[in-house]
Amino acid sequence: MQPPFDPNGRWPLEGVKVLDLGQVYNGPYAGLLLAQAGADVVKVEPLDGEAIRSRGGGQTPLAHIMLNSGKRGLAIDLKSEDGRAIFMDLVAKADILLENFAPGAMDRLGIGSGVLLKHNPRLIYGSSSGYGVWGPDTHNLAMDLTIQAYSGIMSINGPEDGPPLKAGLAVVDFLGGIHLYGALMTALYERSQTGKGRVVEVAMQETALTALATSFTAMQLAGGKQPPRRGNNHPAGTGAPYNVYACNDGHVAIICVRDSHWAALAKASGNAEAAEDPRFKVGPDRARNEALVDEMIGAWTAGLSKFEVAAICKEKRVPAAPVRTMPEVAADRPLRERAALFDIHDAEVGDAVVPGSPLRFHGSPRPEWRPNPAIGQHTGEVLADWLDLPADIIGGLKAGGSIK
Amino acid sequence: MQPPFDPNGRWPLEGVKVLDLGQVYNGPYAGLLLAQAGADVVKVEPLDGEAIRSRGGGQTPLAHIMLNSGKRGLAIDLKSEDGRAIFMDLVAKADILLENFAPGAMDRLGIGSGVLLKHNPRLIYGSSSGYGVWGPDTHNLAMDLTIQAYSGIMSINGPEDGPPLKAGLAVVDFLGGIHLYGALMTALYERSQTGKGRVVEVAMQETALTALATSFTAMQLAGGKQPPRRGNNHPAGTGAPYNVYACNDGHVAIICVRDSHWAALAKASGNAEAAEDPRFKVGPDRARNEALVDEMIGAWTAGLSKFEVAAICKEKRVPAAPVRTMPEVAADRPLRERAALFDIHDAEVGDAVVPGSPLRFHGSPRPEWRPNPAIGQHTGEVLADWLDLPADIIGGLKAGGSIK
Repeated sequence: MQPPFDPNGRWPLEGVKVLDLGQVYNGPYAGLLLAQAGADVVKVEPLDGEAIRSRGGGQTPLAHIMLNSGKRGLAIDLKSEDGRAIFMDLVAKADILLENFAPGAMDRLGIGSGVLLKHNPRLIYGSSSGYGVWGPDTHNLAMDLTIQAYSGIMSINGPEDGPPLKAGLAVVDFLGGIHLYGALMTALYERSQTGKGRVVEVAMQETALTALATSFTAMQLAGGKQPPRRGNNHPAGTGAPYNVYACNDGHVAIICVRDSHWAALAKASGNAEAAEDPRFKVGPDRARNEALVDEMIGAWTAGLSKFEVAAICKEKRVPAAPVRTMPEVAADRPLRERAALFDIHDAEVGDAVVPGSPLRFHGSPRPEWRPNPAIGQHTGEVLADWLDLPADIIGGLKAGGSIK
Repeated sequence: MQPPFDPNGRWPLEGVKVLDLGQVYNGPYAGLLLAQAGADVVKVEPLDGEAIRSRGGGQTPLAHIMLNSGKRGLAIDLKSEDGRAIFMDLVAKADILLENFAPGAMDRLGIGSGVLLKHNPRLIYGSSSGYGVWGPDTHNLAMDLTIQAYSGIMSINGPEDGPPLKAGLAVVDFLGGIHLYGALMTALYERSQTGKGRVVEVAMQETALTALATSFTAMQLAGGKQPPRRGNNHPAGTGAPYNVYACNDGHVAIICVRDSHWAALAKASGNAEAAEDPRFKVGPDRARNEALVDEMIGAWTAGLSKFEVAAICKEKRVPAAPVRTMPEVAADRPLRERAALFDIHDAEVGDAVVPGSPLRFHGSPRPEWRPNPAIGQHTGEVLADWLDLPADIIGGLKAGGSIK
C-alpha cells in the first residue's frame, strides 16, 4: 500500500477551536493530538510559562518541545481581572477546553467547569487528574510515579526477586492524555447531535486499571492473591516461550502464541525433536516447562546477533523482535516514512529526533513537524483572530500586565 | 463534589452502530469504550469465537469478560458467501467498524477497507496493528511483548544492573486500543461536518514512542546515546527524591517536584537541617546527590508502614503513595464510588473484580457492569434490529452454517 496521504486532503478537526491549559505531559499530549488532527489549539500559559519549561535546569526539555508542536502560544494572568475577562471571551468562542490541574484549581480562579459551561453551553470541558475531580481520593497528590505505585502497576513490574518497580516510561501520564483526547472527541461528536457541550473527565489511576487486565486475570486465577512479578516471562504464567533472550550483541524478545509457532521455532533453533516432545508440544505444557523452554531457546540465541535471530524468526513466522536501544529506534527509517518520527532543529535544543501523533487519517495531508510556541508568541494574533480585538486594545492589555 | 451522574441523562454515543471485529486486548478495548459510552457495539466473531476465548486453558480469561462487557455477540463465517453477504448488509448500516487483525487479513477475505468504504461511504473504518497497515515494517509479526522490544520500551525499563525488561502491564496493547478509540471518535465528529467516512489507523509501535517522551529527552541530553535503565529513579536523572522506599510492611513511592516539597519532606522525616543544606536545597543539586537523598529518606521510611508514610506525606503535601498490591487495589472503596471497579459474578469464572471504562461523562447515568456476550448470543436479535430480517431467513442462515 502506498502512503495514504493526500496533499489536498482535509484534516478532521479543521475549524475546531481549543484552549489547552495542559501542563507537563498529560494535558499537553491531548492538545498535541488535537493540533496534529487539524484543530486550532491555543496553549494558554501563565506569564512565566507552564511548569515543565523550567524543569530542564535552564534548557527547555525536549519533551516540552515535542508535546506542544503546532500549537499557538497565549500568555495570560488568570489571577488578574482583565486577564479573566479576556479568558471568558475566549471561552465563549472555544469548542474545547482542556486542563490537568489539581482538582479545585480552576474553581479557585473562579473559572471552574460550572461557570464556563454556563458562559458557553456548547463548550466541551475536559479534565484529567490523578484520582478524579470528585470522590474520596480527589485530593491525593498525583504524579506519574505515585499513581504507578497506587494503581498496582509497580506491584507486577520488575524481576521476580526484586522490589516493586516503576515502569520506565511515563505510562500513566500518557494513558491519561490519550483517554482525555478520546473523551473530548466523544463529547464533540455528541454535540454535533445535541448542540450541547458537557464536562468529561479522566482519572489517571483508572486508565492504569484497565491496562492491568492481565494482572486482574492472574489475580482471579490465584484466588484473589497477588500475582508474582514475572520479569520478562508471561505475567499470568500461561504461555512459553514468552521471554527476552540474550544474544551475542544484545537481546531479543520471542513469543509463541500458537503451537505452530513453537513447532517452527523448535526447528529453526536446531531443536526439531522438541516440536513433538509431549513436554512442549502444546501451550499449557510448555508453560509448565517454561524454564526448560527458556534454556533451550537461550542456548540458541546466545550464538547469534539480535537482528539475526529476529530475521530467522520473521522468515519462519514466529513473533519476535530485537530489543532496540533508543538510538536504534531514533535511527529507524520506516518510522520516518510513516511520519511517526521527525528530525527537527530547535533553536534552543539543537538537532533532535521526536515522535509525532500516532493517529493516522487516511486521505489527510502528510503530517509535518511544526515548532512549539514561545510563551505568549501568538497572544496578539489569537486575540485578533478569535475576538477581533484591535491592536491598540491588545497593546493596552499587554501594557497593563494581564497578558504577554 | 457529588457524583456527577444523572439517571435520566443521555449517553454520548446513543444511536451509534459499531461492528467490533477486535480480538484479544487492543481492538476489544476500543469496543469496550464505545459500548460504555452508549454505542450499540456488536462483537463479530468467527463461529468458534475469537482467539482469546481459548487461551485460559479451558476457562474464559477474565480479561475477555472485562473487555467485552455490554457488547452484543454475533457469530458469522466470513469465509462463506452467505456470511459475507450478511456482513456487507451490516456494514451498510454501521457507523463504525474496527479491527486489529494482521495487515492484509481483511483484504484476503474480500472485505478490506477500500471495498467497505465504497459500499458505505459514511463508514468509519478503524484499524490497529503493530507497525501500521502500510510501510516497510507492515508485515512484522506484532504482539505486546515484541513491540515493547522493538519500540525501545524494554531498553529503558528495569534495574540499572539488569537486562532490558518488559513493562509488567500490556501497555502497548492498551495504548493501541485507546488511540484507536480516539481516532474513531475524531473521524465520527468529522463525518458530522462532512457527511463522509474514512479510514483511520493506529500502529501500536507509534503509540509507544510518544509515551517515551522522557527517554527521547534523556537521549537528547546525552548527545544521542542510550539513556541508562534507572530502576525506580528518575529516568532522566533530573529529579530527587524520585524513588520507591522500603517500609516495614512494603514500599512507598515519594517524589519531590518542587523545592518546597523537599523542605516539607526533610522536616517530616526528621532531617530539618537538610531542608537548607546547599547539597539538597534546590532540585539540580538534589539530583546530583540522589544517593544521599535516597539513603536519608529510606532510613526514615524503614521504621514505618507504607500507609503511615503516605499519610504523613499527604498531610505535609508531599507527593507520595503506598505501593499497593493488586488485592489492595481490588478492595479499593473510592474506586467503587467512582464506578471504576465492579464486583461481578460470572457464571463461568465466578466472583471477580474488574475495572470499567475510565471515561466519565458528567450528566450521563452511572456506569454499570453489563455481561459479555457468549459466541453468537445476539446474532438473531442484531440481524432483526439492524436489517429487519425475519425469523425464517435467520433460521435458514443458521441451518446453512454461515452464522451461529
